[in-house]
Amino acid sequence: MTKTINISLDVMGGDNGPTTVLEGADIALVRHPDIRYVLYGDPEIVTPMLENFPRVKQASTFHATEVKIEMDERPSQALRRGRGKSSMWKAIEATKTGEADVCVSAGNTGALMVMSKFCLRTMANIERPAIAAIWPTLRGESVVLDVGATIGADAQQLIDFAMMGGAMARSLFAIDKPTVGLLNIGEEDVKGLDEVKEAGRLLRDFNLPQLDYKGFVEGDDLGRGTVDVVVTEGFVGNIALKTAEGTAKQLAEYLRSAMSRTFMAKLGYLFARSAFMRLREKMDPRKVNGGVFLGLNGIVIKSHGGTDGEGFAAAVGLGYDMVKNGLTEKIEQDLSVYHKNRFAADGESAS
Amino acid sequence: MTKTINISLDVMGGDNGPTTVLEGADIALVRHPDIRYVLYGDPEIVTPMLENFPRVKQASTFHATEVKIEMDERPSQALRRGRGKSSMWKAIEATKTGEADVCVSAGNTGALMVMSKFCLRTMANIERPAIAAIWPTLRGESVVLDVGATIGADAQQLIDFAMMGGAMARSLFAIDKPTVGLLNIGEEDVKGLDEVKEAGRLLRDFNLPQLDYKGFVEGDDLGRGTVDVVVTEGFVGNIALKTAEGTAKQLAEYLRSAMSRTFMAKLGYLFARSAFMRLREKMDPRKVNGGVFLGLNGIVIKSHGGTDGEGFAAAVGLGYDMVKNGLTEKIEQDLSVYHKNRFAADGESAS
Repeated sequence: MTKTINISLDVMGGDNGPTTVLEGADIALVRHPDIRYVLYGDPEIVTPMLENFPRVKQASTFHATEVKIEMDERPSQALRRGRGKSSMWKAIEATKTGEADVCVSAGNTGALMVMSKFCLRTMANIERPAIAAIWPTLRGESVVLDVGATIGADAQQLIDFAMMGGAMARSLFAIDKPTVGLLNIGEEDVKGLDEVKEAGRLLRDFNLPQLDYKGFVEGDDLGRGTVDVVVTEGFVGNIALKTAEGTAKQLAEYLRSAMSRTFMAKLGYLFARSAFMRLREKMDPRKVNGGVFLGLNGIVIKSHGGTDGEGFAAAVGLGYDMVKNGLTEKIEQDLSVYHKNRFAADGESAS
Repeated sequence: MTKTINISLDVMGGDNGPTTVLEGADIALVRHPDIRYVLYGDPEIVTPMLENFPRVKQASTFHATEVKIEMDERPSQALRRGRGKSSMWKAIEATKTGEADVCVSAGNTGALMVMSKFCLRTMANIERPAIAAIWPTLRGESVVLDVGATIGADAQQLIDFAMMGGAMARSLFAIDKPTVGLLNIGEEDVKGLDEVKEAGRLLRDFNLPQLDYKGFVEGDDLGRGTVDVVVTEGFVGNIALKTAEGTAKQLAEYLRSAMSRTFMAKLGYLFARSAFMRLREKMDPRKVNGGVFLGLNGIVIKSHGGTDGEGFAAAVGLGYDMVKNGLTEKIEQDLSVYHKNRFAADGESAS
């Protein structure tokens, strides 16, 4: 018997409620029949709904929870109200008890992060967690982190992010030594924020075996896919991510409006329909849905709150892939190599 | 006789050399025949070249300069080598002596900023200058600043940026009271960087007559055009700007590739050709070329280094519009109102 991948779901999370979560779970299950779900939610809502998803019901253990975290609730209040008993908390906790390998929630991002930190705690040697996004690029995909877990990061924290992002890239993209860049406002070594410059110097000095550090990258390198992993602190990363999303929406709107203006344009659209469909697929934000919380003792994935079943399935698939490819083990291994080397180096310079 | 608008040009600046600058000057002159140019450059190159642009020659005063600032030169070195004698320095200085109303250069951004600060100094009551970009949005255009003049900004500096950006929006968009937002990673008052929260609190308290403060905006509000003026510090602003540019290029590449894959797509492209042309025009980065240095005793406009004549003409046109609409006077007036009110408020709270 092959090992199943156990995924806990916060069934109550998301703008569109439990239907979307169960739809997504169903789609993901067809793709990966070796998934087993651990579901948390309000039995009065979820139990009857499960009858419509016999495949999911068959592959799930359901746990009743009483509290649902609201999408607009403050993280501190959510923690007070939901700690130990909300569907969100219990789904996170399942990765700690070992009942699940990974947790997926489309709920309130701030609450999910605070609860995850509180419940799972950061890994040994990691001070602060990061949210990693998968960024579609002209070359394929890159990992970008932190896109909003915490504001600010010193040089050491940026190096932690580089290692965690590198491990994620190795889990997802099947490359041995991912290329890594630090997001900055110029490519020369003299430019930019002090902590970014310091992190760059250290990454060059350490010359980590599992990373290929390429230096600074700029905002336009994100879409270009210049490196496999782009490292930045959470304020800048979040603004870059939302700016790119906004620009993509803006251009899609320009395109839509241009194509519906004249008869000839509409005719052209009809002829090129399959090309437009390919383009839409390429630009589909649901395909790369899922922010991964890294640096905690457990993997938690945040699905976009407003997504549909297809998008939620992508987030579940992402969690599946990362567990299957041993993300946590890779991070732990990289950190241990790094800290061994670093202390060895410290020892040398002290002698 | 109507007043002419006097524009100084660093003819040697830019990746593509003096031809692009003179081509752009020529295009702008056809649009605005009341421009007079003050040109600075190497006479051996520029004098014979001017023969190909008789309109520009006719409308210009030419000054010979010996030093040309290289595009990859460090700002500190550029200042040492070019102070007082480079085409860049002299073009900036012309706005100080009164020979020009505005200076336009496609040269090295860092060098242009350092020289402008050194030569023009910051305005009274302004601690640090900002670079403002004109951002194309779904609603039209917004002013976004700072996109890279300096890293970091405290609450007071963010308020300065808001006022200067507001004055620029009033000069360009013909609105009396532009809407203003602070770029942050959440819309609630409790989220984000401390200095951003503090600036938000102060903007609400002051309730400046010339600005309509709307609160925090996020990265995706940039393309949406939620507010007329988006305020942030230079590191984040620069990364947001380049991220948007990179995303636009990425999607244009997706579109190009989708439209050339199959015969039907190519046929569709032909039918919809005029729509695609409109789209290309809409997305044309040359149309909104020009970063405006604000907060100095003189207006300096940075054209993109790699632009062509059309793009350089847009930067010249931008300078023309701002002078015509009294940008400097508006900034000075707004600052004086603000400081009068602020000191009055300080006096009240002290009494």
